[in-house]
Amino acid sequence: MNSNPSNAMALTSTTSNKKETVCIFGTGDFGRALAYKMIQSGYSVVFGSRQVQISSLIPKGAEVLSHTEAAQKASIIFIAIPRQHYNFLLPLAEVLNGKVLVDVSNNLKLNQYSQSNAEYLAQLIPGAKVVKAFNTVSAWALQSGTLDASRQVFVCGDDKKAKQMVMDIVRALGLTPLDQGSLLAAQEIENYPLQLFPMWKFPIFLSLGLIAFFFFYCLIRDVIYPYVNEKKDFSFFIAISIANRICPILALILLALVYLPGVLAAIIQLYRGTKYSRFPDWLDKWMLCRKQLGLVALAFAFLHVLYTLVIPIRYYVRWRTNSGVISQALNNRTDQFNNSNAWLSDSYLALGILGFFLFVLLGITSLPSVSNSVNWREFRFVQSKLGYLTLILCTAHTLVYGGKRFLYASSYRWYLPNAYMLSLIVPCIVLVVKFVLVLPCLDKPLTRIRQGWERNPRYSEQSHYIINKSAV
Amino acid sequence: MNSNPSNAMALTSTTSNKKETVCIFGTGDFGRALAYKMIQSGYSVVFGSRQVQISSLIPKGAEVLSHTEAAQKASIIFIAIPRQHYNFLLPLAEVLNGKVLVDVSNNLKLNQYSQSNAEYLAQLIPGAKVVKAFNTVSAWALQSGTLDASRQVFVCGDDKKAKQMVMDIVRALGLTPLDQGSLLAAQEIENYPLQLFPMWKFPIFLSLGLIAFFFFYCLIRDVIYPYVNEKKDFSFFIAISIANRICPILALILLALVYLPGVLAAIIQLYRGTKYSRFPDWLDKWMLCRKQLGLVALAFAFLHVLYTLVIPIRYYVRWRTNSGVISQALNNRTDQFNNSNAWLSDSYLALGILGFFLFVLLGITSLPSVSNSVNWREFRFVQSKLGYLTLILCTAHTLVYGGKRFLYASSYRWYLPNAYMLSLIVPCIVLVVKFVLVLPCLDKPLTRIRQGWERNPRYSEQSHYIINKSAV
Amino acid sequence: MNSNPSNAMALTSTTSNKKETVCIFGTGDFGRALAYKMIQSGYSVVFGSRQVQISSLIPKGAEVLSHTEAAQKASIIFIAIPRQHYNFLLPLAEVLNGKVLVDVSNNLKLNQYSQSNAEYLAQLIPGAKVVKAFNTVSAWALQSGTLDASRQVFVCGDDKKAKQMVMDIVRALGLTPLDQGSLLAAQEIENYPLQLFPMWKFPIFLSLGLIAFFFFYCLIRDVIYPYVNEKKDFSFFIAISIANRICPILALILLALVYLPGVLAAIIQLYRGTKYSRFPDWLDKWMLCRKQLGLVALAFAFLHVLYTLVIPIRYYVRWRTNSGVISQALNNRTDQFNNSNAWLSDSYLALGILGFFLFVLLGITSLPSVSNSVNWREFRFVQSKLGYLTLILCTAHTLVYGGKRFLYASSYRWYLPNAYMLSLIVPCIVLVVKFVLVLPCLDKPLTRIRQGWERNPRYSEQSHYIINKSAV
Repeated sequence: MNSNPSNAMALTSTTSNKKETVCIFGTGDFGRALAYKMIQSGYSVVFGSRQVQISSLIPKGAEVLSHTEAAQKASIIFIAIPRQHYNFLLPLAEVLNGKVLVDVSNNLKLNQYSQSNAEYLAQLIPGAKVVKAFNTVSAWALQSGTLDASRQVFVCGDDKKAKQMVMDIVRALGLTPLDQGSLLAAQEIENYPLQLFPMWKFPIFLSLGLIAFFFFYCLIRDVIYPYVNEKKDFSFFIAISIANRICPILALILLALVYLPGVLAAIIQLYRGTKYSRFPDWLDKWMLCRKQLGLVALAFAFLHVLYTLVIPIRYYVRWRTNSGVISQALNNRTDQFNNSNAWLSDSYLALGILGFFLFVLLGITSLPSVSNSVNWREFRFVQSKLGYLTLILCTAHTLVYGGKRFLYASSYRWYLPNAYMLSLIVPCIVLVVKFVLVLPCLDKPLTRIRQGWERNPRYSEQSHYIINKSAV
Repeated sequence: MNSNPSNAMALTSTTSNKKETVCIFGTGDFGRALAYKMIQSGYSVVFGSRQVQISSLIPKGAEVLSHTEAAQKASIIFIAIPRQHYNFLLPLAEVLNGKVLVDVSNNLKLNQYSQSNAEYLAQLIPGAKVVKAFNTVSAWALQSGTLDASRQVFVCGDDKKAKQMVMDIVRALGLTPLDQGSLLAAQEIENYPLQLFPMWKFPIFLSLGLIAFFFFYCLIRDVIYPYVNEKKDFSFFIAISIANRICPILALILLALVYLPGVLAAIIQLYRGTKYSRFPDWLDKWMLCRKQLGLVALAFAFLHVLYTLVIPIRYYVRWRTNSGVISQALNNRTDQFNNSNAWLSDSYLALGILGFFLFVLLGITSLPSVSNSVNWREFRFVQSKLGYLTLILCTAHTLVYGGKRFLYASSYRWYLPNAYMLSLIVPCIVLVVKFVLVLPCLDKPLTRIRQGWERNPRYSEQSHYIINKSAV
Repeated sequence: MNSNPSNAMALTSTTSNKKETVCIFGTGDFGRALAYKMIQSGYSVVFGSRQVQISSLIPKGAEVLSHTEAAQKASIIFIAIPRQHYNFLLPLAEVLNGKVLVDVSNNLKLNQYSQSNAEYLAQLIPGAKVVKAFNTVSAWALQSGTLDASRQVFVCGDDKKAKQMVMDIVRALGLTPLDQGSLLAAQEIENYPLQLFPMWKFPIFLSLGLIAFFFFYCLIRDVIYPYVNEKKDFSFFIAISIANRICPILALILLALVYLPGVLAAIIQLYRGTKYSRFPDWLDKWMLCRKQLGLVALAFAFLHVLYTLVIPIRYYVRWRTNSGVISQALNNRTDQFNNSNAWLSDSYLALGILGFFLFVLLGITSLPSVSNSVNWREFRFVQSKLGYLTLILCTAHTLVYGGKRFLYASSYRWYLPNAYMLSLIVPCIVLVVKFVLVLPCLDKPLTRIRQGWERNPRYSEQSHYIINKSAV
């Protein structure tokens, strides 16, 4: 590669045996890490710096030149300096003309500037082809090679060829480029590394709200009520007993909330007689976070299993069992074996085990690498058929657990029903509505609607061109 | 891009700053979703439709033209209409000449037509370059961006350059293209999204058969026998006790069946004195579904663990324990501590725990993303060495569980041995044969055979060119 | 493709409809498997062999020619013969001139030769462009299509264009090429398939050492001491009781060792007043195997959970409970309920459950496919914030488990403290130091140092060019 930029563009030229030269402006952490990785991958690297002296930190094999000299050496220049210093590039506008400038910068806050850094750069140097890339990769990861977090590098830019050059470099470094389109996407790409689980916010805040509600509900029923009425101190119930009431309740409610939007969508489609109108916004958002809702539900189910399995180890339980046995022995009396109790106890445990097993299966299939290796039919079979089976089993588990208890007045302390009864409302509604929707008289029109049929078609020809691929 | 198709072909032309135009025939769900995604990724989209009026459903920025006009605008045309309407393309044959036609269609049934849709299209328009692609992606996933299921897009076609163009688009949309070769692969690609876990069928039907057998076996021994002989109603055993007999039995048998084909293959190779003859078909198929067999076995092991851990919570077990204690107390008698019982009980539990732990480890390493990040030597070490260790531990767990019980006549109700004894047959055979095969007198020739040595070589020179890389 | 090699180079030529021809030297396992797969993917394959006769093993559609004839047919030649036979290529040097030679060979031992096979080949035929690739893929996997283990194909070579050609073939076969740079990387690539979990060695050997130490420690305290002092035989404790002491101790110590190097690094940075000096080698290595340390810790935690949950099923425990109850009944005495015991028991169980739950969450997020789909901020939030919370919960779990026991003289058998006390040393140190480091007076300078500030800067300008992206 020589200093003639127009020739240097030819990435796939026949003189490919020579190492390609890339230029990096900025000798900070990220610039150096990038240089280190690029030299490793067979590139020739030249730094552009105000101070040409080579520091011990500069990776071996890299050259350090003035900005102008460095820019002339390469057709692609990485701008590894903070946005605040971009204006120092203005005097270099001429030498940067026609070059590919890669903006690798990040901000400290979401939407810190109204204009993304990359767009700002493109505006400063209109003659250059600006590509946004590499901002999701950390300097430390590049240098140490421990790319545990995302290997995906989002790339966007208005010039297709420039983007292609950058994506080739991304691939050469062992990373995966993801073309995000034009420079308009830069704002989103710059926001990406600042995000903290945006899809998880709704499920987690919902869970926290429900936890708070059910905690105080159970506290009143299980700790305060016996304290007021019988002067018994059951405050230690907080650690396990109440936690083990909240967890299954949340698991069941959240699992039902995964399937509720699908049922609502079906009702809306049936009512409107078409699938070609947008759902309300809240429903769209709800549908997009169903996976997260389901996984949070699974987490609570997992906690419920652990809390349940330690029951026989608890001091309180062992003491209660032992004193029961001793009092029976002292009274020379033995409890009669009750066959229906045995049936109830065993079947509620069995239902819970099977429900949890299917729940774990659902969780495993939602791992990215697993869901990537199944086709849509399989994915929908698991998430819909197995999902509903899980919901049915878990609801049945809770119903059988309750048994006939809801008939006894003693279950209503201060007129408050048992907490598990509250948890049954949503799942029962979902299951009943789903059962109604599966009846042929409703299922047939719904299927036709989902295949594109409209009760009041807006224009005649459309239905010819439907490919049966939709999924709700 | 202008309307001259020969120029428009040049994807990597120097005029790359202009947006590339793609054409979509069909304004149905999939066509629109595709257009939406392509516009997002910086393409210019033009629809070909019989009715040129723009509907509100058409994504913003897309043009709608007549088929002929639309086809002239682009070099690549997505045929997003059902196969039944393909013949409407016949009058357009001339304008489609030299164009890349992308067949995205799916069928409703496996092998619905003797000829794949893409081949049918290629036959209708012989002048076009037909590429099959995108049929595994759903419209809903494209539009919502929730590509949970496969991001893989299978691509096939007879024209290498056309295929390359389509694969570039696939990558630009953030999906992963997978070249499947010539258009002959179209049938398979069209069948793919209709498949429902084909590799899992054998393991699951086998499990269902074994479950049915062992269920009735245990029902006779554990419920019907005591009912007939002692008039005791143990029907509630079905929920947990019998389930907890069936699960470990299936886990052990299926795990042994994972390792049986490898042992059989070794015997066949030793007998034939060469590895260069094909195994019988059933053995080949069996070997290919070993992973699925192992994962089903793990599922049963997981259920067995849950069923076992709830034992102390069961009403029946608590009642039995308590009444045992009470009767001892009333009779003023205490069971003597039996050291060998303690050893047996603790070691069978410990063996089970360690076996299950290794089993879970095997399961985790068979997750696609984990198995992708280990090399072959590591993968084989885990799946073979750790796998056999798991089998040994689980077999030992079952043997110690049985203890001396097989000696007692009471274990044979109606001459039926305990179910766990039946489960030991296959694993013991596998372990004994494997042990024999590991003996140096058999291991040495086997290793040589696997490195390419032949007892009766078919032509002399071959053995020179073996690279030691085979795995069974 | 004709026999003119210079034309054949044009992979993307306009005559792309013709199948591209590749040549394979060597008809061994790997050569044939490669040919089979390539024919499937639409390539035309010609074998170069000393013996031109077609064997039944050669995949259908492949030609077999003499080496010279075969080499003339293609621009790319796979050398699928062992290194020992490379010198037979010397007479072919002229016909191989300008060709791309792909070295697919592996060795039997790590660093078997001082020079890598690929470099040796490049030296033998200086006129050819040697590319190292495909050595990590097994013949069996290629042929059967069960690419469970790595789909990644490491590629290296000095000629960029030749490398590109090979990478295109890799992609066409459905595999993922990873450019590793120049031919200097060949040694490492050849060593890769011979490695056996190199990153896991330190954590596993450390664990084995700790297991041995704590096993004998507990054996002395729990088995030998009561045998010597009270003539009681508790040897059966080895199977579960002692295992269930070792597992939590190892889980806690290893988890603390995951966070210790980060704390040490912070101290070093604070002391040096800069982040621009290399950490000592042992610290670097330690930091790189933190993930493995954490996963081994999780394995021990998992075992601890299983060992704990089977406690109520153990014969010894049931016997001890029952005889305790019976003796109370016979003595007409009932243990008083102790509220603080209930609190202690329930809260240590609850802390353990929550700690294990977070630990499992950490483990799941370290699965490659999960960690790939989060950004750095999220990854660090989980691994650092949630990680410390896990450490705090697990340490608290152990502290509460101990309760006031460390005050009793009976806890010190032969002056040996309970094993769990030893396990608390490292985590407590880590937590205390971390707590000190979080104090504003230390946290502020540390943050500034990590953003590039230096107490004694080496040259003035540097701090301008820091992009805040470092992670420790």
